[in-house]
Amino acid sequence: MSGEDNIYDVLIIGGGPAGLSAAQYASRSKLKTLVVDKSRTAGALAYSSHIENYPGLTRSVSGRELLDIFREQAVAFGAEVVEAQVIGVKLDGDIKEVLTMEGGYKGKSIIIATGSMGRKASMKGEAEFLGRGVSYCAVCDAAFFKDKVVCVIGNSEEAVKEAGYLTRFASTVYLISPTPKLKVEDHPALTAQNLKVLHGTTVTAIEGGDAVEKIRLSDEAKKETELPLSGVFVYIHGSKPVVDFLYGTVPLTDEECIDANRMMETPIPGVFAAGDVRCTEIRQVVTAASDGAIAALSAEKFLHHRSRHKYDWGK
Amino acid sequence: MSGEDNIYDVLIIGGGPAGLSAAQYASRSKLKTLVVDKSRTAGALAYSSHIENYPGLTRSVSGRELLDIFREQAVAFGAEVVEAQVIGVKLDGDIKEVLTMEGGYKGKSIIIATGSMGRKASMKGEAEFLGRGVSYCAVCDAAFFKDKVVCVIGNSEEAVKEAGYLTRFASTVYLISPTPKLKVEDHPALTAQNLKVLHGTTVTAIEGGDAVEKIRLSDEAKKETELPLSGVFVYIHGSKPVVDFLYGTVPLTDEECIDANRMMETPIPGVFAAGDVRCTEIRQVVTAASDGAIAALSAEKFLHHRSRHKYDWGK
Repeated sequence: MSGEDNIYDVLIIGGGPAGLSAAQYASRSKLKTLVVDKSRTAGALAYSSHIENYPGLTRSVSGRELLDIFREQAVAFGAEVVEAQVIGVKLDGDIKEVLTMEGGYKGKSIIIATGSMGRKASMKGEAEFLGRGVSYCAVCDAAFFKDKVVCVIGNSEEAVKEAGYLTRFASTVYLISPTPKLKVEDHPALTAQNLKVLHGTTVTAIEGGDAVEKIRLSDEAKKETELPLSGVFVYIHGSKPVVDFLYGTVPLTDEECIDANRMMETPIPGVFAAGDVRCTEIRQVVTAASDGAIAALSAEKFLHHRSRHKYDWGK
Repeated sequence: MSGEDNIYDVLIIGGGPAGLSAAQYASRSKLKTLVVDKSRTAGALAYSSHIENYPGLTRSVSGRELLDIFREQAVAFGAEVVEAQVIGVKLDGDIKEVLTMEGGYKGKSIIIATGSMGRKASMKGEAEFLGRGVSYCAVCDAAFFKDKVVCVIGNSEEAVKEAGYLTRFASTVYLISPTPKLKVEDHPALTAQNLKVLHGTTVTAIEGGDAVEKIRLSDEAKKETELPLSGVFVYIHGSKPVVDFLYGTVPLTDEECIDANRMMETPIPGVFAAGDVRCTEIRQVVTAASDGAIAALSAEKFLHHRSRHKYDWGK
């Protein structure tokens, strides 16, 4: 077996919708493709209990189910998938490397599709009720809270905007700011009749049975109260692209995201980025899947072009 | 009933994957949404007999089936769909208009998602075997022709590239150039062992039973021959964005496509473009669906922003 046999055409880091869509497109183009996925149960989509706004769904499915479909499609076209946590990459040189706790993988091109995640769940009950009333995405989940009481936790412009969006669905939206003042005070969302702002208030626990039923609050005077509600939208730190394993190999913006162009190219030849790890305002399954498809087609073009150069100079 | 009742928040022209994905996102955001679709059986996707590379499919479906799923989803979220051919638009002013043979529709924003189409089928048998051996997209359909004989008709760089792509699937690829010379002569694709170029040759007919079985050829000396094969990829004029009804209201590039930005905005406020009608190199169902979702979210932002301005100045 020659060394070439161990070298993939396309190495994909991340097994979410971007990575698996890329895998499907790459393997369907007959490229030797490997997806390195941290875990089937990690990632923003895996945590989503219902997805109904992915075009092409005939019914509401869980994020896990949708990921299973994506993965099976990619595997059916010939992609390999391994479960391993990536701890580093080597991107200089023609052959790139992905390092994991279980060993390394080599590839002629790399697609980074590690997504972005909310900060670690830190409130009592937050992790427990994730997908059962706790959400990190109003656009994704607002429709599930029609005529119900919900809260948004946060004080940023994003939190205010998302609260405004939710006022069109929920009966009442509580915007719970841990600080005495919001970071924006004159946003039009704040004029909605069914929006109530609680300043200087901390959520100490999220509680319920099968789903969220109430939260516990502590005000500035440390007075504890309860608030019955069905939905808790957490916008405390916002979503953070997963780029820690890159250690500066790929340039990041000040927001620590990868500024790939519309063909998903990074400044490093043969290195592409797709999905929520990119600098993007829109984080939807369909946009990630589209990114993945484009990244794979760009990788295909890159590989083809390289073999062309090799041919041109007879090397 | 006030006049406002007849005004949609979002008017979408085109009922393909971009338009229907936009409709789904817009209606799910509680925007009053209308899709104006020429016909359920027109459009590039409607003509596709198998789609297997749309992420999320559990089986290969026909283009029509996939469109039905997209449409049902949009309607389930509240979007209306009418079948009518758009013959003109009025885009200046706050309220935009879409004119059809059956009357007009008014909207506060417009998403143009009319797609792009190959030129009119002009070869004998081309229309008849479309989706049954005749294809306009090698990336879409190459995988269906593993180890079979196919031809690409055309002389452009695109035709040469697509022929090169097909050599990795088909046993033999004939590149049939109607002109004595190809427009590119040194492309690496031309070195593939299983590619044969026929110069100055015209395809006079595509023939078969249930599917394509052979083509008839005429060379420069008008000598007629037959060639048995399974697939015919037509790249004579390439795909052309459907923009005729715009009559210069939206700026077009020299290639007659709409150069929308990454948020799908055109230079006209409140007018967005999504899918293959945009200037794009990649024409896939998933990229069109992603465009549609982004266009709807941008329209939502535009409408929200406008009502904010109204609020700010008390008008």
